[in-house]
Amino acid sequence: MENIAYYNGRVSTIEDMMVPMNDRACFLGDGVYDVTAVMEHVPLALDDHIDRFYNSARLVGIEPPLEKAALRSLLKELVNRVDSPTQFLYWQVSRGVGPRGHAFRFAGATPSLWVFSRPHTFADVTKDYKAITMEDTRFFHCNIKTIDLLPNVLAAQRAEEAGCAETILHRNGRVTECAHSNVHILKNGTLITAPLDNLILPGVARKHILAICRKLGIPVEERPYMLAELLNADEIFFSSSSAATCRIVEVDGRPAGGRDLETFVAIRDAYQAEMRAEAAGA
Amino acid sequence: MENIAYYNGRVSTIEDMMVPMNDRACFLGDGVYDVTAVMEHVPLALDDHIDRFYNSARLVGIEPPLEKAALRSLLKELVNRVDSPTQFLYWQVSRGVGPRGHAFRFAGATPSLWVFSRPHTFADVTKDYKAITMEDTRFFHCNIKTIDLLPNVLAAQRAEEAGCAETILHRNGRVTECAHSNVHILKNGTLITAPLDNLILPGVARKHILAICRKLGIPVEERPYMLAELLNADEIFFSSSSAATCRIVEVDGRPAGGRDLETFVAIRDAYQAEMRAEAAGA
Repeated sequence: MENIAYYNGRVSTIEDMMVPMNDRACFLGDGVYDVTAVMEHVPLALDDHIDRFYNSARLVGIEPPLEKAALRSLLKELVNRVDSPTQFLYWQVSRGVGPRGHAFRFAGATPSLWVFSRPHTFADVTKDYKAITMEDTRFFHCNIKTIDLLPNVLAAQRAEEAGCAETILHRNGRVTECAHSNVHILKNGTLITAPLDNLILPGVARKHILAICRKLGIPVEERPYMLAELLNADEIFFSSSSAATCRIVEVDGRPAGGRDLETFVAIRDAYQAEMRAEAAGA
Repeated sequence: MENIAYYNGRVSTIEDMMVPMNDRACFLGDGVYDVTAVMEHVPLALDDHIDRFYNSARLVGIEPPLEKAALRSLLKELVNRVDSPTQFLYWQVSRGVGPRGHAFRFAGATPSLWVFSRPHTFADVTKDYKAITMEDTRFFHCNIKTIDLLPNVLAAQRAEEAGCAETILHRNGRVTECAHSNVHILKNGTLITAPLDNLILPGVARKHILAICRKLGIPVEERPYMLAELLNADEIFFSSSSAATCRIVEVDGRPAGGRDLETFVAIRDAYQAEMRAEAAGA
């Protein structure tokens, strides 16, 4: 198939899949999701993503209708039915189908499982990218991968309209993350990245990049940092499972970063090698 | 019909209505909505709700597919097809159907219009209610009626589980609103309510209640106030278009308010009279 969609046991193409209007994803944003890239029909770092997915679900009190192992098998089976070896694999659980209302009065409803996978093109990680900055006006649950993404949508759209790859968000000057990725800086050979709290998503790519830094002997500081520090950094890059690592050399129309290509390339290439090794079953 | 659902021109019961998985309401919370109560088949304060709906849509850059007058006609027509004279009328616009992605790359997609109406039972406004309090961890766009409601869902559920009618939210002690209503206090005969900013929804019931106060000679202060002031108030009540006005006499398990029934009843009864007059076509 060219792409695939799954909803509570039904399978079709994404374009043909219909879901009940009364699913709590539709009216209440009452769900969580996860995403990973697929290379050679292998969903990358799948266990990490599944662990994060169950953690997101737990934090909002939703119990996914499948156990981890069964979800893993289902995702792999669906990915195998799509022709393209490189895919964007998405899955979400919502609190189920029932009459709209904030509180979940319909106790006993089964959460709904949604999946789709479609051909994917990775970002060109050898290119240089531009970013804009914006006040982070999101909620204080950014550690949970919920489908309540309208502020992220608006931030990403603003980047798109500015011809940029990402929007760097900050709370009163403190850098959090981007519209749909984590952001990191390099300064004097040290990688600095925001700590894991309720202001950022615990990125799977972020986790792998920090492990790579430790392996390469690059010191890592997980601590709050301000926009001024980012603008003064040697390198700035963002990371996500679907885009890998993208170097930023311009922020809000002014040159920024771009002064420690060597360290960035070491991290970037090690991460690429890790992805390819996993895809090759190494 | 017992209830009615509408999606981009299709009509069915709510339970039978299916929508495309790829509608941006499903994966991205990329939509806004409004709701009003229907009495004697009359959607109450409909112009106020329609104005707010278009304003919400404008603030997130979505253009509803119908003009105001056409939406008004459609809503009235749908309401008339439902047997029950008392209804809960809901409508939402999402940014449309297209491949999932934060930025709206599919320029030209038509926003989707969703509507449903179902039988409704108003809250008993002569009863006394209980509430709990909770830190307001929502985003800074609470003036926009978006479908990104997971924090509201969790707050409402917490009230439900505590046997309470509402959760009063506060930011570091500053009272904002409730999980799905505005909240007001009475002190020495004055009504005090949070000002219209990005922390609260501009409630239509709130607007009508303030107008009623002015008509009744009850002074109104629209200003920030703290939880301590609420706990020390003569009366506490919340308001919404679907629940009207509900008096709170217990907060977090302790007696609160309940000391100026006369003023509360004057407001409550004037609001009830206004609703009934509108329903009667007066």
